[in-house]
Amino acid sequence: MQIHPLVAIVSLLALLLYFYMSLRVGQGRSKYGVAAPAVTGHPDFERDYRIQMNTLEWLPIFLVSLWLFAISWGSDLVAAGIGVVWLIGRVLYLTGYSRAAEARGPGFGIQALAAGVLLFGALGRIVWLMVQHGA
Amino acid sequence: MQIHPLVAIVSLLALLLYFYMSLRVGQGRSKYGVAAPAVTGHPDFERDYRIQMNTLEWLPIFLVSLWLFAISWGSDLVAAGIGVVWLIGRVLYLTGYSRAAEARGPGFGIQALAAGVLLFGALGRIVWLMVQHGA
Amino acid sequence: MQIHPLVAIVSLLALLLYFYMSLRVGQGRSKYGVAAPAVTGHPDFERDYRIQMNTLEWLPIFLVSLWLFAISWGSDLVAAGIGVVWLIGRVLYLTGYSRAAEARGPGFGIQALAAGVLLFGALGRIVWLMVQHGA
Repeated sequence: MQIHPLVAIVSLLALLLYFYMSLRVGQGRSKYGVAAPAVTGHPDFERDYRIQMNTLEWLPIFLVSLWLFAISWGSDLVAAGIGVVWLIGRVLYLTGYSRAAEARGPGFGIQALAAGVLLFGALGRIVWLMVQHGA
Repeated sequence: MQIHPLVAIVSLLALLLYFYMSLRVGQGRSKYGVAAPAVTGHPDFERDYRIQMNTLEWLPIFLVSLWLFAISWGSDLVAAGIGVVWLIGRVLYLTGYSRAAEARGPGFGIQALAAGVLLFGALGRIVWLMVQHGA
Repeated sequence: MQIHPLVAIVSLLALLLYFYMSLRVGQGRSKYGVAAPAVTGHPDFERDYRIQMNTLEWLPIFLVSLWLFAISWGSDLVAAGIGVVWLIGRVLYLTGYSRAAEARGPGFGIQALAAGVLLFGALGRIVWLMVQHGA
């Protein structure tokens, strides 16, 4: 990991945060009386479940864009910095959504913005490099 | 990204298509009156949600197989070409399924075929290389 | 794939096992009379669906941690060996959960342990390397 250690650490922290969200769903099964395999039955459980699922839904976008951004720009620090913004957005999403469905907006917006910068930043850079090199 | 720029671009386009599917679900919440955290309540919304979820379900298969195919065969163009077939299948899946559940078959079949070629193509190639090198 | 062929093969086998779980859900639709886009309606179908979904939920943790473990420790064999333990846990999870929701515990525990070793093993190693190199 000489190449992108900070991006690797941010990736693993994102997976740890996501794992914590999954834990909350598992604990919610007994707490709210929602036995497996059901994933509905109590509004608090359903919000906890959606927190995990929505984060899962965004993980491929985030992780792939993060690494392609880091590799295409050749910058570990900048990519990891944007990744930390994504992490902060996801923590706010978790704390907001677990309070009320309406309070999930700000955190969601922050993580969407960070993911968008990574995705379009990588896409633009790679296309630019190909045009330049005439590949 | 000197190594596999086309595969990187196809990966990011797949994530963009998937992001568009997620957007449709978000918009569907107000359009069909399905408030978060519910994911059921209106057949059109449920089909839109399944379009996104099924694509999420296949993204790990597609992305990992795509890259391992490109790396193991040492070919950016061929891997990216099969990846484009997957993308076309996913677009047909989206347009078909959003019309009617019964119309999701052809697009699904195309993307499954493309993903299968990538997965078994990569697996066969890597095993072959190991046998040859006596690793 | 001169670098981590065994980890690549374990990754593709994990995707094949996951694909088999998806197939069971697809077949369950006709077997249990649960027409798309519904994902509820019969307890056997719902367990099959959760087997697939829970495996999807863990795939990002497993795959990213597996590769970062292999790269950071520079060891294909050890990473792949722990990956095989994860695979065994997932097979037990499948056979247990498809019998009864209560029987999903042992397989789940084994795969969670293997994923945890990969995740914390990679995280610890990368932080250690950064501290050592004063990066």
